[in-house]
Amino acid sequence: MSARVGIVMGSDSDWPVMQAAADALSEFDIAYEADVVSAHRMPEEMLDYGKTAAARGLSVIIAGAGGAAHLPGMLASVTPLPVIGVPVPLKYLDGMDSLLSIVQMPAGVPVAAVAVGGARNAGLLAVRILAAGDTALQERMSAFQADLKAAAQAKGAVVRGTGLPPVIE
Amino acid sequence: MSARVGIVMGSDSDWPVMQAAADALSEFDIAYEADVVSAHRMPEEMLDYGKTAAARGLSVIIAGAGGAAHLPGMLASVTPLPVIGVPVPLKYLDGMDSLLSIVQMPAGVPVAAVAVGGARNAGLLAVRILAAGDTALQERMSAFQADLKAAAQAKGAVVRGTGLPPVIE
Amino acid sequence: MSARVGIVMGSDSDWPVMQAAADALSEFDIAYEADVVSAHRMPEEMLDYGKTAAARGLSVIIAGAGGAAHLPGMLASVTPLPVIGVPVPLKYLDGMDSLLSIVQMPAGVPVAAVAVGGARNAGLLAVRILAAGDTALQERMSAFQADLKAAAQAKGAVVRGTGLPPVIE
Amino acid sequence: MSARVGIVMGSDSDWPVMQAAADALSEFDIAYEADVVSAHRMPEEMLDYGKTAAARGLSVIIAGAGGAAHLPGMLASVTPLPVIGVPVPLKYLDGMDSLLSIVQMPAGVPVAAVAVGGARNAGLLAVRILAAGDTALQERMSAFQADLKAAAQAKGAVVRGTGLPPVIE
Amino acid sequence: MSARVGIVMGSDSDWPVMQAAADALSEFDIAYEADVVSAHRMPEEMLDYGKTAAARGLSVIIAGAGGAAHLPGMLASVTPLPVIGVPVPLKYLDGMDSLLSIVQMPAGVPVAAVAVGGARNAGLLAVRILAAGDTALQERMSAFQADLKAAAQAKGAVVRGTGLPPVIE
Amino acid sequence: MSARVGIVMGSDSDWPVMQAAADALSEFDIAYEADVVSAHRMPEEMLDYGKTAAARGLSVIIAGAGGAAHLPGMLASVTPLPVIGVPVPLKYLDGMDSLLSIVQMPAGVPVAAVAVGGARNAGLLAVRILAAGDTALQERMSAFQADLKAAAQAKGAVVRGTGLPPVIE
Amino acid sequence: MSARVGIVMGSDSDWPVMQAAADALSEFDIAYEADVVSAHRMPEEMLDYGKTAAARGLSVIIAGAGGAAHLPGMLASVTPLPVIGVPVPLKYLDGMDSLLSIVQMPAGVPVAAVAVGGARNAGLLAVRILAAGDTALQERMSAFQADLKAAAQAKGAVVRGTGLPPVIE
Amino acid sequence: MSARVGIVMGSDSDWPVMQAAADALSEFDIAYEADVVSAHRMPEEMLDYGKTAAARGLSVIIAGAGGAAHLPGMLASVTPLPVIGVPVPLKYLDGMDSLLSIVQMPAGVPVAAVAVGGARNAGLLAVRILAAGDTALQERMSAFQADLKAAAQAKGAVVRGTGLPPVIE
Repeated sequence: MSARVGIVMGSDSDWPVMQAAADALSEFDIAYEADVVSAHRMPEEMLDYGKTAAARGLSVIIAGAGGAAHLPGMLASVTPLPVIGVPVPLKYLDGMDSLLSIVQMPAGVPVAAVAVGGARNAGLLAVRILAAGDTALQERMSAFQADLKAAAQAKGAVVRGTGLPPVIE
Repeated sequence: MSARVGIVMGSDSDWPVMQAAADALSEFDIAYEADVVSAHRMPEEMLDYGKTAAARGLSVIIAGAGGAAHLPGMLASVTPLPVIGVPVPLKYLDGMDSLLSIVQMPAGVPVAAVAVGGARNAGLLAVRILAAGDTALQERMSAFQADLKAAAQAKGAVVRGTGLPPVIE
Repeated sequence: MSARVGIVMGSDSDWPVMQAAADALSEFDIAYEADVVSAHRMPEEMLDYGKTAAARGLSVIIAGAGGAAHLPGMLASVTPLPVIGVPVPLKYLDGMDSLLSIVQMPAGVPVAAVAVGGARNAGLLAVRILAAGDTALQERMSAFQADLKAAAQAKGAVVRGTGLPPVIE
Repeated sequence: MSARVGIVMGSDSDWPVMQAAADALSEFDIAYEADVVSAHRMPEEMLDYGKTAAARGLSVIIAGAGGAAHLPGMLASVTPLPVIGVPVPLKYLDGMDSLLSIVQMPAGVPVAAVAVGGARNAGLLAVRILAAGDTALQERMSAFQADLKAAAQAKGAVVRGTGLPPVIE
Repeated sequence: MSARVGIVMGSDSDWPVMQAAADALSEFDIAYEADVVSAHRMPEEMLDYGKTAAARGLSVIIAGAGGAAHLPGMLASVTPLPVIGVPVPLKYLDGMDSLLSIVQMPAGVPVAAVAVGGARNAGLLAVRILAAGDTALQERMSAFQADLKAAAQAKGAVVRGTGLPPVIE
Repeated sequence: MSARVGIVMGSDSDWPVMQAAADALSEFDIAYEADVVSAHRMPEEMLDYGKTAAARGLSVIIAGAGGAAHLPGMLASVTPLPVIGVPVPLKYLDGMDSLLSIVQMPAGVPVAAVAVGGARNAGLLAVRILAAGDTALQERMSAFQADLKAAAQAKGAVVRGTGLPPVIE
Repeated sequence: MSARVGIVMGSDSDWPVMQAAADALSEFDIAYEADVVSAHRMPEEMLDYGKTAAARGLSVIIAGAGGAAHLPGMLASVTPLPVIGVPVPLKYLDGMDSLLSIVQMPAGVPVAAVAVGGARNAGLLAVRILAAGDTALQERMSAFQADLKAAAQAKGAVVRGTGLPPVIE
Repeated sequence: MSARVGIVMGSDSDWPVMQAAADALSEFDIAYEADVVSAHRMPEEMLDYGKTAAARGLSVIIAGAGGAAHLPGMLASVTPLPVIGVPVPLKYLDGMDSLLSIVQMPAGVPVAAVAVGGARNAGLLAVRILAAGDTALQERMSAFQADLKAAAQAKGAVVRGTGLPPVIE
């Protein structure tokens, strides 16, 4: 079956961050493709990637980049698909440069930014977007959220347990 | 016909910013509903809004908020729908507080952040999300992008014109 | 005896930071309860926690959260109790996102923010709040402050001692 | 009847911001005193103010200051009362200097910071603190929160009304 | 004569800022062309602009953009010419987003950033670049710098004059 | 009588900010000289100014500059006198660039930075430096501080007066 | 053959960062000279360096500095050559102070800033500047960019390969 | 002989940073005293320290503090002596909170701020202040600056040496 989501990044050094997007998609059995598509090193191929994305069957693009992160915005300029941008933190500035370069897009060309290093949420946002027209997938997302709750509540037990609950005055 | 997109905001004072999201949707003939849903002033009604959103036929939620902007993230916690967050700039800090409060969501519960004050792009992102499963709408988005190009090129004429083009040395 | 203070956090990974609040309360023999209550993973239980807090006998809530830290503000929206927010620093941005998400609350719903990672002070602030109507506890707080002074003065001896005091010109 | 809350500020130029704290207290019929107490221009009187506050019958101190805002922290160092700090924005830096100078207190001496310019919330936080030991006042705070909800819902009508609700496609 | 420098910007709304670059070039009788070339609204034309720049006789490109400012970096990716980026300040964030989006380029594709709103210096930097291989132009730049000195010294007279110089004790 | 303090700035446009330094010195009858000395437009004259300052009888230099504010640090590199740097706020960034450019000097060459726009304090700091070896001047500074206190206390009356003091519950 | 580019830095501790500029030049067989030229520790020699640079045959100066980074701007004030500034990150503030001190130059005296720690790009920018008047060098830069593309595409294979490509739903 | 400079800090944990101030003074044979004087833990003793400083023979106070760094400003409020503030970096925020808390003093009460962690420069600034009325000391400072130059030039040899100087094209 063909990929529904494209995960691209400016360099393979972004993969350790971006892999979490792929993992999230796999948990929902969403087929994806992953590639290095650099806005600055192969701009024309990058535009080609964006221009052909819809025709190739993709419904969502997830793009991760760091520093002067131009990849998500440039892809958004040549595709009608929703583009999710992941600010990848580099050695300095804690990803604040990446975040602003991704999120502060001009009116007309939107990018959906997630948190610095937030690739897992990029994957989950892609699932929600696909689920907007897919009741079964939407139910799986609701179930996933129920699981999150159960896991968080289980963690509470740990905190409640370690001698901390109500102290006797 | 029922609304496909819900536009909510923490206060009616956010409306002058958020109206641009409604305008963008109207340009694409997308039915929407607009309401004040405050995370901090009516938290239970806010959760109800989020919990019933999918069942009421909404496919996307656009939420605008300023300062400690909790509305987008809280809605995302109770709906499987994609939630787009618009950082509304307040009197101080130029919306940086709003942006970080919206975008820095923990893994598991994604919010799609747009630029500070970027409500028009929130509307356009909602259109792209709806268009992910709607070829006709996707073609309209592509046409919209072609119009953007034409308009930008027309503006170039103005700049090229005002005496600035090639000076004779 | 029942708990006077509730210490909650978005995840058990916040416990190493938040434990200092519990320790401070224990030093003043204040009974507390500790739990994981995630705004984003179990929003309804979170609101229930806040809504029942006063009736359950709590007088103060201490809530720690990181990133888009919504827990303190959301609890404050459903309880009349004073809520103290602890910005938990995450991997990036040094807790500046947590701080702004907690402190920049809209008019009407206050949160008392302490320093990034300042859980010990959150505990001590809770003691001061309880002591506002408890002369004996207020005297213990004054004694605690006297001890702080003595400890600081003792540390001075170390600095004065290590060969640094008045050099002979 | 004697004042329960002291509202102090570094300069009378802070009064336009700080007045909102007084107004909030008045809405709850809490007696307060207001004064200019400058940490930098009258440090000894400032310490005296803090040292005598509890004995004079105050239960909470609200202190507003801008720039290198030392007033809240210095008062907290000489009183066992809870001290609420209001970062007053000055001409430059949007109050970020005031906020950090107030909130980043060292362990041992807590200050409860509210938002930049958030004097109204400082007043409301003082009410919550007083209400922690006063059931009737706590009920008034709950009623106040119910009124906030009603007002927010009423504002929603305005937004829903202006032609924006469900557009017919 | 053909243009030596290309001045491009993302929108004609950037022209009031960018005009200063054109003025600086005109002062040195450098022929330039000016155009609106939007990275996000006409990405392919933008790449074409960059790819043909050298062949069309340009030696330097000056590109101004605001927010998620991708224009300078994208042009630099398709031309071997030096590209100067001017961070245009928008309504919020004082151009910090523009600056970081322009200057934080990945290794391999340099952009020469100037100050926020610093279009005049972009023009002067282009002159210096052209002068690196043109002794006569370099002498004009040296003369320009001598004029700057004279003007600054003349301004000193104003300050020295207004009653401020040496007061008699 | 010859000047004891030199007040210099990068441009006469800095004078409206820097004048407050001159006024402060005049209040203490300290003779000063004022001049435009631009690090970037007349670097050699600037170094000359610094190198001859001590020999010309100056004891302190106050230097104001904005943006990439190099004047205070460069003067400090060629004089053994204490140099006080005033960060002048420009149109963007609220003087944060000026502050960091002035205060973050490398080990070996100190500059004494005051607040953004804090020229009056630069003048008062110069007075304190001169007073370090002048008992009479030190007493005048102490008297000045007593006046500050009296003025602050008088302002308190205004705040205490306007209907705000102790409300009758 | 004589050096075309001068690489200078405020301290030899900057060399580990600045070496990348030298390496980039060497890849293009550009002769360079490297030296420690401190704005704050040897200001007159620094100015001499700048004043004689053009006459000594240099066409471009690359200057790296950290903190209150005055070296690039001061050199630019005494040479008509293009000066490239490299913000060197120090122990604190992630190079934000260095960046602002370098890039925020006043109108009249431009510096070409690259990314924090971006010395390699400084070297490549110098190559582009030299290539503006050297067709052969410009072709080498174009070839270099083609190599960047090939390398990026090769890295894509790695990402595409590691099990990530299209999952079977 | 009695101390001329007082070095104080809020905690003995600041000593590893502040020791560099003591070392600088020792290099110039300036007698100093060192002590822990906490604004927040022993406020009255802190004010006493400041009030008696001049009478005890001190000419300059160096105060280091981190976070909500109130020590330098509070000392400046009770002494006519020049006070130098050293922003001590803590675990988070890289000392930006310390810097703003120290430097943004209100008009009337100046503090001389140095760089984050810049204790050595605080010591050297104290020497310059003392030297303002002491020709011999001023000459030693000039000699010190000459030594800085020699050391920087020597470091240049290292950089020039390591294979980097002029490459043969």
